[in-house]
Amino acid sequence: MKIGIDLGGTNLVAALCKENGEIVSKLSVPTKVGDPEGVKADMKMLAKKVCDNRGISYKHVTSIGLGVPGSFIKETCTFEFATNLQMRNVCFAEAFKPEFDVPVYIDNDGNCAALGEALRGAGTGARNVVMVTLGTGVGGGLVIDGKLYTGSNNIAGEIGHMVIVAGGDQCNCGRRGCMERYCSATAMIRMANEAMDGSADESSLRAVREQSGKITAKDVCDARDAGDALAERVFDKYCDYLACGLANLINILQPDCIVLGGGVSGYGEKLAAPVREKVGAEQFKVGDKMTPVHIATLGNDAGLIGAAMLKR
Amino acid sequence: MKIGIDLGGTNLVAALCKENGEIVSKLSVPTKVGDPEGVKADMKMLAKKVCDNRGISYKHVTSIGLGVPGSFIKETCTFEFATNLQMRNVCFAEAFKPEFDVPVYIDNDGNCAALGEALRGAGTGARNVVMVTLGTGVGGGLVIDGKLYTGSNNIAGEIGHMVIVAGGDQCNCGRRGCMERYCSATAMIRMANEAMDGSADESSLRAVREQSGKITAKDVCDARDAGDALAERVFDKYCDYLACGLANLINILQPDCIVLGGGVSGYGEKLAAPVREKVGAEQFKVGDKMTPVHIATLGNDAGLIGAAMLKR
Repeated sequence: MKIGIDLGGTNLVAALCKENGEIVSKLSVPTKVGDPEGVKADMKMLAKKVCDNRGISYKHVTSIGLGVPGSFIKETCTFEFATNLQMRNVCFAEAFKPEFDVPVYIDNDGNCAALGEALRGAGTGARNVVMVTLGTGVGGGLVIDGKLYTGSNNIAGEIGHMVIVAGGDQCNCGRRGCMERYCSATAMIRMANEAMDGSADESSLRAVREQSGKITAKDVCDARDAGDALAERVFDKYCDYLACGLANLINILQPDCIVLGGGVSGYGEKLAAPVREKVGAEQFKVGDKMTPVHIATLGNDAGLIGAAMLKR
Repeated sequence: MKIGIDLGGTNLVAALCKENGEIVSKLSVPTKVGDPEGVKADMKMLAKKVCDNRGISYKHVTSIGLGVPGSFIKETCTFEFATNLQMRNVCFAEAFKPEFDVPVYIDNDGNCAALGEALRGAGTGARNVVMVTLGTGVGGGLVIDGKLYTGSNNIAGEIGHMVIVAGGDQCNCGRRGCMERYCSATAMIRMANEAMDGSADESSLRAVREQSGKITAKDVCDARDAGDALAERVFDKYCDYLACGLANLINILQPDCIVLGGGVSGYGEKLAAPVREKVGAEQFKVGDKMTPVHIATLGNDAGLIGAAMLKR
């Protein structure tokens, strides 16, 4: 058995998982923000409880994995810093002793979600998976040969900061034209606002914007579902950019599949189907075998399962 | 000892290498284009001779690796097709028996060059290396965890076909704005021609073009060395695009280093230094540790050494 722990800004969640990642017991407590010793104690308490709940002896746990937001040092299992946790340089390597005398692994929560989806979610059975998270920003994670790939300095997988429009829209990272500026939920909203401001075309989104003072990516998708032509145009452009970024990743890495997560992926097959088609037309392939593009399936459990599946 | 063989359109070259890739004996014959049985016989003959030359028993050879142009099937060690070899579906798995009863590996010649540079050339000591070849086109190869990474379908590493200018210049691959269209020798030439055609600026390149009917990437570099302002402008723009592509690869893969090969890399440090600076300003890094950008060091031996170092 393995234990996965997801250290979030709001909740601290722990799960006992089978070797294949299946969750058998799960518990959570509010995160004691700014109290590293309290967080450590809660982690151990949760680790013990998820075992106790199922009558599993602590001795049967072979590893513990932590998914954390922000920066960390893998080698020493040390969490370095994240704005929303108000903690610095907390070492978790010994936090579970003496009850659990096992290796403790640490990685980025986004990477853990990628690993979870790759091994037990939309990518199950795949060896190489690229996960792309379409939220406020664009994140990602690479699974290579069944393991998380984090590069030579543990920060690989910054897929959102691949430039696809040289000299394009200014990104927070300092570059211009990053995938994040064209493929995030934020980007879809910006494109919709630009489309409304740049034309006099009728659109139900105008009323939404007037009423709530803003629109969301879901508003754009809803308007498209209702047959709104402007929303359709914006969505199609968004899919073009997304397909461009995904075809880049495929041409470089040729994974077994791409998994789309994050808020925008909630649009499901209505997102995946057009993107799949556009990617297929742009990617390098053997014969006519296109790289599958899947929607993530594990939701919030992905990070927890991925944390449990961490290994050296 | 290992044997590496480079099957080129002109020459068939074989080398006996130490475990660390050092070449101890090397021989070549003209490639018998269109004669698969002749090529097979020559390969075996060369494999025996590189051993004989050094008095090495065939029994001390532990593997044979083939670098081939065009497509191939790794699993069966079969060369599929390349225009300039006029051969189809040649299986090399048994070609060296009974003298050499060892595993025979096959991979793309560009990938072999990447592996050679990673393990014994500019990337020596590195675990993760991205090689980018700047020639007529832009090629590449990925070494991950000390091994060639070719993805789930053996065709990963098409770095040149990462779009960096969405909607940009039309590429032969069907996409628009590929790195190849902005970072190859061909691209540098096109940009120089466009700069000359689009302005009345004086440039020594105009005379070169008039005399020879064309210019080369080396002409652009030579003119820059001589202080030509137009050439300087073109070169600077070329480096911007190259840095954009390399920073993308770094943000995604965070290798230990990038190695630049191919014709344009012959410009050496005069290319690497400005590119390094531009990449450093764009890439994600830990602290201020920039990813090194090196010029390839092995020349034509890279593919031969990489072929010898192939493994499962």
